Amino acid sequence: MRVGLIGFGYWGPNLARNLGEIRGVTLAAVADRSSARREAAGARHPGTFLFDDPVELIARPDIQAVVVATPVATHYELGLAALEAGKDVLIEKPLAATGAEAEMLVEVAQREARVLMVDHTYVYAGAVRKIAELIDRGELGEIRYYDSLRINLGLFQTDVSVIWDLAIHDVALLQFLLRRRFLSVQATGGCHLGEGVESVAHLTLGLDGDAQAHVNVSWISPVKLRQTIIVGDRKMLLYDDLEPDEKIKVYDRGVVFDEDRPALLRDYRIGDMWAPRVDRREALAGVCAHFVDCVRRRARPLTGGAEGVESVRVLEAAQWSLRHTGQLVKL
Amino acid sequence: MRVGLIGFGYWGPNLARNLGEIRGVTLAAVADRSSARREAAGARHPGTFLFDDPVELIARPDIQAVVVATPVATHYELGLAALEAGKDVLIEKPLAATGAEAEMLVEVAQREARVLMVDHTYVYAGAVRKIAELIDRGELGEIRYYDSLRINLGLFQTDVSVIWDLAIHDVALLQFLLRRRFLSVQATGGCHLGEGVESVAHLTLGLDGDAQAHVNVSWISPVKLRQTIIVGDRKMLLYDDLEPDEKIKVYDRGVVFDEDRPALLRDYRIGDMWAPRVDRREALAGVCAHFVDCVRRRARPLTGGAEGVESVRVLEAAQWSLRHTGQLVKL
Amino acid sequence: MRVGLIGFGYWGPNLARNLGEIRGVTLAAVADRSSARREAAGARHPGTFLFDDPVELIARPDIQAVVVATPVATHYELGLAALEAGKDVLIEKPLAATGAEAEMLVEVAQREARVLMVDHTYVYAGAVRKIAELIDRGELGEIRYYDSLRINLGLFQTDVSVIWDLAIHDVALLQFLLRRRFLSVQATGGCHLGEGVESVAHLTLGLDGDAQAHVNVSWISPVKLRQTIIVGDRKMLLYDDLEPDEKIKVYDRGVVFDEDRPALLRDYRIGDMWAPRVDRREALAGVCAHFVDCVRRRARPLTGGAEGVESVRVLEAAQWSLRHTGQLVKL
Amino acid sequence: MRVGLIGFGYWGPNLARNLGEIRGVTLAAVADRSSARREAAGARHPGTFLFDDPVELIARPDIQAVVVATPVATHYELGLAALEAGKDVLIEKPLAATGAEAEMLVEVAQREARVLMVDHTYVYAGAVRKIAELIDRGELGEIRYYDSLRINLGLFQTDVSVIWDLAIHDVALLQFLLRRRFLSVQATGGCHLGEGVESVAHLTLGLDGDAQAHVNVSWISPVKLRQTIIVGDRKMLLYDDLEPDEKIKVYDRGVVFDEDRPALLRDYRIGDMWAPRVDRREALAGVCAHFVDCVRRRARPLTGGAEGVESVRVLEAAQWSLRHTGQLVKL
Repeated sequence: MRVGLIGFGYWGPNLARNLGEIRGVTLAAVADRSSARREAAGARHPGTFLFDDPVELIARPDIQAVVVATPVATHYELGLAALEAGKDVLIEKPLAATGAEAEMLVEVAQREARVLMVDHTYVYAGAVRKIAELIDRGELGEIRYYDSLRINLGLFQTDVSVIWDLAIHDVALLQFLLRRRFLSVQATGGCHLGEGVESVAHLTLGLDGDAQAHVNVSWISPVKLRQTIIVGDRKMLLYDDLEPDEKIKVYDRGVVFDEDRPALLRDYRIGDMWAPRVDRREALAGVCAHFVDCVRRRARPLTGGAEGVESVRVLEAAQWSLRHTGQLVKL
Repeated sequence: MRVGLIGFGYWGPNLARNLGEIRGVTLAAVADRSSARREAAGARHPGTFLFDDPVELIARPDIQAVVVATPVATHYELGLAALEAGKDVLIEKPLAATGAEAEMLVEVAQREARVLMVDHTYVYAGAVRKIAELIDRGELGEIRYYDSLRINLGLFQTDVSVIWDLAIHDVALLQFLLRRRFLSVQATGGCHLGEGVESVAHLTLGLDGDAQAHVNVSWISPVKLRQTIIVGDRKMLLYDDLEPDEKIKVYDRGVVFDEDRPALLRDYRIGDMWAPRVDRREALAGVCAHFVDCVRRRARPLTGGAEGVESVRVLEAAQWSLRHTGQLVKL
Repeated sequence: MRVGLIGFGYWGPNLARNLGEIRGVTLAAVADRSSARREAAGARHPGTFLFDDPVELIARPDIQAVVVATPVATHYELGLAALEAGKDVLIEKPLAATGAEAEMLVEVAQREARVLMVDHTYVYAGAVRKIAELIDRGELGEIRYYDSLRINLGLFQTDVSVIWDLAIHDVALLQFLLRRRFLSVQATGGCHLGEGVESVAHLTLGLDGDAQAHVNVSWISPVKLRQTIIVGDRKMLLYDDLEPDEKIKVYDRGVVFDEDRPALLRDYRIGDMWAPRVDRREALAGVCAHFVDCVRRRARPLTGGAEGVESVRVLEAAQWSLRHTGQLVKL
Repeated sequence: MRVGLIGFGYWGPNLARNLGEIRGVTLAAVADRSSARREAAGARHPGTFLFDDPVELIARPDIQAVVVATPVATHYELGLAALEAGKDVLIEKPLAATGAEAEMLVEVAQREARVLMVDHTYVYAGAVRKIAELIDRGELGEIRYYDSLRINLGLFQTDVSVIWDLAIHDVALLQFLLRRRFLSVQATGGCHLGEGVESVAHLTLGLDGDAQAHVNVSWISPVKLRQTIIVGDRKMLLYDDLEPDEKIKVYDRGVVFDEDRPALLRDYRIGDMWAPRVDRREALAGVCAHFVDCVRRRARPLTGGAEGVESVRVLEAAQWSLRHTGQLVKL
């Protein structure tokens, strides 16, 4: 399978490296507007065709699949062109800049019977797979609450707010882990250092089955933190992606209510903690392998067009709320 | 000085111990409705008068000052009685259950020329004093953003939500550290384990001078976390009260904007980190000493009636917002 | 039961507080050479007899048991006097300054049929009890290696080296957890800041059953660390007493050897980690309760004379080795 | 400059990648006995000559410099052949398996006027450079004590003990940071899981100027730890290479002695902590750049033959001590 990559900036080189390591896959071409980046791509991947204009890459008949790793604003146009040229397409998150664009991509992919996948990277991380396994087998009980802290210094985007850059990870995780419908979203935040787009946001998401999620994302934190708490009615879980070893901790903790008077707290349950072993392979390797596999088997990706549209719809609503005093938006 | 303490439950014994260690102060009486608690008070503080009914304690002419450490709903009634009996009064946080009650206490205290102080404990912690010193001398620059995580498992209150129990600490810290007017508040959250009152809340607070604060409080976390980030336009600070040694970390970090095009981020500044030494004396010892000092000098406490009223007003508004889909409340 | 306490310095007040909370036990008297300390004892424990001279305390017929919390050099003399006066005796660790003295105390206790107990505090800690339970039920397999780091800044002792102050904890833990004979000891270290006695020591201990232990103790560390690793041939354990929550972590980790060629490593086993819940009651409360219980039941303490003698013998040998270029001493 | 690399096992690929990124340097050839490894080298570095026999690589006249990354036992033979063929040589640590071999390499390098460098990687790490800078400008005062913990699970070596694998890092750091003569060494440890070579070792090193170092290395730890404490008579430093952000912490801590009676401790000094910013470039990139630079300028490397010989001599003595009950070996 010959694959073309559009965009060799921040994330493109990682995609190139991972694609290149899949047996039977050839990174056939790279397109980037910057000559320095094309040069870098050529040095690391000798024998790859290099293009200034992505249209030329898309036009090549020997390329079966196209990976789009460009700024968000161009996802729609490039994805559309590739799908219409009959390519299978993997697009960096978010799928598109608006829900309307994302839906159009899905439609075209269906019409052309092409694979359309969005790179919701964390869905392919070993730790997240393990959490899904724990939830699916009922280890945590019914999930009631999800609280995520995802903060660091930069990298500031000039075109989109921190919601599109960081909160999308939590929306994708909620999709994959809880498989419930998003009912509402609201967001507060701001541009606290005069940086043009919002660098801080706090989202509250209502989900089916009376569950709630909260997401705190920021580019203006002195420290990098990734802490996700998932509260079930049986157990609680802490997921810290920065922990080298114990990324997931499952706590046998909870509250015990009085049997006769349900709302009356009787006691706390504080039992053992358990950190299951987690597969430590790079998540992006899983993304690339899954894309290649879907292309070969003509299968629907786990993070396909539908998931891409839904997450963009949620982000769009969150962004609207953020600019309208945190008003609740029904989805 | 002879002091009477009303309430010997969770916090009362700590107040009693700290009061007892101040030179010249005698814990003269303890009132509590529970005989077991009165017994406990008697065992630890031999020679102290014990009352079932707080009214009897308040009536004693040999008692000059009264400390109220009872459930929130009773603060107003007991505080009022003590003030009207001519006592100086220290009340556990929050000052009262409503803004109207809190204001009435202030009025009576003024009329009677009595000291009225609220126990906003953290204001008297060594770490917070050090942060105030750093902010006041301009180390952090102009403060733009405050983000606080204050979560643990329990202790559930049956009468008030987590806002009244935990978020009040951040409101009091913002008062003391920033000295700006609160302009607005909004809050989301919920009762995720069927516990009657809200056990999770997320507050967004607008402050004068274009600053914003976010507070995440929860009683349903598997881990206890206390992380407060303060972002200034010169430096950033992380305050973690659970760190045994390095409670405050000052980061020489920030963003650098292009001089010609102000909204364009040019670079990040990542310099040294510095953890100033912090006075580790118990905050509550400072609370008690300050109260005794104000009584003796007939002085206005640092956390007096005005601060108590303001924080109750903010909490009241937050609680209203929490129950009205996070609507923004102007203050 | 009426108990007398000799020594109200660093550790004495903690013993007094814990003894005072045991039902049926009265702290009847405190002896200390310092009038300031006697005054402090009187303030906290009203109604207690105060003595300058410990001989007077020992002479009181109404006192059944004596607790000795004085500098090491006086343990023998005071313990002896108390035993000969017919008292049951609890002595702060180490039991005595030399093995000969320790043995003499054991002899007299036997002759007088008195309880003699040494305060090896950690043996009574919830975490250590849990580790013993894990080892006893074979969770870790055969124990092969024990490695302990026990370092902090100060508290310098003027009379004894860091071995007697800190390494004794590990000797007591090894006794209690492994129940094997000590075969040899050697030690290196030094006085690196000109402080008179050795402030750093590294002990290597040979134990029965081909096990080895290493202990690193220091008073000149910028940070306080308590990390003990216990390696079994089935699992490994990390015990960190400073962790507020997860003091014990059990790792399903090890090495896998080739079945046919035993010394050839085939692979590593890296499985889950598990942090069992630990009883968090104060260890010293357990010490005091056990002493009182042994006195009442005329029973042999878990950390009695024999354990006290053995640990002093090991420390004595380690101290000798430390001053003789780390030569191995057979025990 | 055309460089040949011998050995493409664990470390070789990292050397290849870093060499390949230096401007003006070409990775011309790779030799490895394993066909699978040669294949891997060919895939990552297209256009590179591949050899089974390292002699053929050394024989190529177009190759100016040779990098040796093979098992320790072969360092001498391969290094010698390369030097005698007129190549400049960089050898993985340790320089050779014995002091005699290491000295012979130095002699031949001098005779042939070739560059001989040993890859003491950490000397080229940003954190270590920063520590050197702090020590050199007197920030810590006179260095009195160095204590290093360097433990993890595996990677077991079949040919050499943990001393040669891990303790060499500390010997190299002591060389670079303290620049003092090693006076003595002694070591204890063992093979606790039946693994043939010693997997645990504790070294005590005497250095000129009354300084002492202790090194604890292990392959049988459930957790990976890297903690180095450096105690000066002015300040103390903690270096933790696994910390993502604050690798170095400088503590304004120490002991204060009585002016009149020097050995009498008067007090502790506990001041601020400070974590200087550290250059985070990969240490191995610095190793490769320094080697290339020395070759070009015909300069003596920072970690040249003399440093290589000294560290092998220390390790040799430590290994001897380890097998002779920890006897002290004078150097």
